[in-house]
Amino acid sequence: MNQLQRIGWIGTGVMGSLMCGHLMDHGYPMTVYNRSREKAASLIERGARWAETPAEVARQSDIIFTMVGLPSDVREVYFGENGVLAGVKTGAVLVDMTTSEPTLAVEISKAAADLGCSALDAPVSGGDVGARNATLSIMVGGDARAMARVEPLLAHLGRTIVHQGPAGAGQHAKMCNQVVIAGTMIGVCEAMVYGHRAGLAMETVLESISGGAAGCWSLQNLAPRILRRDFAPGFMVEHFIKDMGIALTEARRMSLAMPGLALVEQLYLALKANDGGRLGTQALVLALEKINNLQPPA
Amino acid sequence: MNQLQRIGWIGTGVMGSLMCGHLMDHGYPMTVYNRSREKAASLIERGARWAETPAEVARQSDIIFTMVGLPSDVREVYFGENGVLAGVKTGAVLVDMTTSEPTLAVEISKAAADLGCSALDAPVSGGDVGARNATLSIMVGGDARAMARVEPLLAHLGRTIVHQGPAGAGQHAKMCNQVVIAGTMIGVCEAMVYGHRAGLAMETVLESISGGAAGCWSLQNLAPRILRRDFAPGFMVEHFIKDMGIALTEARRMSLAMPGLALVEQLYLALKANDGGRLGTQALVLALEKINNLQPPA
Repeated sequence: MNQLQRIGWIGTGVMGSLMCGHLMDHGYPMTVYNRSREKAASLIERGARWAETPAEVARQSDIIFTMVGLPSDVREVYFGENGVLAGVKTGAVLVDMTTSEPTLAVEISKAAADLGCSALDAPVSGGDVGARNATLSIMVGGDARAMARVEPLLAHLGRTIVHQGPAGAGQHAKMCNQVVIAGTMIGVCEAMVYGHRAGLAMETVLESISGGAAGCWSLQNLAPRILRRDFAPGFMVEHFIKDMGIALTEARRMSLAMPGLALVEQLYLALKANDGGRLGTQALVLALEKINNLQPPA
Repeated sequence: MNQLQRIGWIGTGVMGSLMCGHLMDHGYPMTVYNRSREKAASLIERGARWAETPAEVARQSDIIFTMVGLPSDVREVYFGENGVLAGVKTGAVLVDMTTSEPTLAVEISKAAADLGCSALDAPVSGGDVGARNATLSIMVGGDARAMARVEPLLAHLGRTIVHQGPAGAGQHAKMCNQVVIAGTMIGVCEAMVYGHRAGLAMETVLESISGGAAGCWSLQNLAPRILRRDFAPGFMVEHFIKDMGIALTEARRMSLAMPGLALVEQLYLALKANDGGRLGTQALVLALEKINNLQPPA
């Protein structure tokens, strides 16, 4: 009975808190850990039990979710001295929902198997809005039976839950997502600076081009923000740089040239060097304006 | 009265024939010219009058549409010895619907004004399907009063008809469209080769990523064709290369760096060098497979 399963949640940032909260709303007993305890305060108030270490979460849980920042954080949370693998019980399922390295997912999966457990990689797309509304797309890699065990839980977090293959396949699928986004971002942002330099009213151009073969989420959702000079993060530049770095590292490992992604990463790195790391990904237009000595439109 | 206006149509290829046919369906008296007369045969059968030169079309028409191939064809059709400008009558409106150079559109507009006429640039997006169903997006540059005169005619050809600004602005808006597409194409095709090399089932990946921030027309419409190894042209590589060349030439003229578009053009040129010029734009994936020594999936 899923209702009796004890859940652990490690990583209670913006996304993690929202997702963990949904599981609590559905009545699951919850133990939480986060590097800084303050970010878990509201979950604790709502009844979650606090644990001092990831190992302690693991000792008290049948299914353990992790949603942290960098692959190095994932490594520490699983393999660290007081990590999940130091406390996990036989038969537990570990679910890393961080966007992280496919090879690290394979490593975790093997270590878990050695301990008689299962591990899944299950990164998401949909951002904080998707986390809040439980409409995330969840891309799952790992053993299909382990996935079947956690699927009722994932169904409380997202709307599109797809098994992508063995360990690491969820992360690889997420990388495909990010690679497409990198393309749409450079296309949209270069079109914006081209139109700007050509003297077009870009609002009017969007009327003509949004409905056809140029149509994309980024054009629909981010181009209007660029026009308002709204660079607040939906998805933050630093996080996107992390993801592109993972994809390019994996591509390098597979001897795969991805010239488009490599170029887009370079421009985002330049944007970060110009203090754009905490802006939203639509701020790529700022990097293109900068290299082109283009003044922001009035 | 629009019904009394005599229409001329120059360029009766796939797109031009379909569009010209719509105007004939609405009862407009039509004179046509095409470099090879055979391609105008069905229009002539339906009652269009044949003219031996663009100048002859212009002499017999109040409103003259052109839909040809390259900017050099546009130049010849307008400025050639027996070109439109050699025959055009005072007060006529010239409408070039070819995707062509913004600077050439300005040149035509000035030459037309010197003869007491108006010229509009009015390139379209939507392809042969949009031409057939009269659902094109038409981006218009030039004098707003001239546009008002031809708008009832354009309304028979397309669904989204937007005035983008002075002469050349229609062409510039179309370039924005193509710049975005270049980005979506590199994103989608690099994601396909990444997923392929990583051993993913890309049909399954598309289930996870099509509905979110990676969502775009190219992913929706062209990725499935790539999976079926269907490289038949919706939009042909050579035509896209022509358009990217126009955008990059204009960008050069404006001292605007567009590194993403420049890269995508290079890959399409390599594809053309490998006999891919007559394939559809989704064949970009073949160029990426080639540089990566990636065998087509079974």
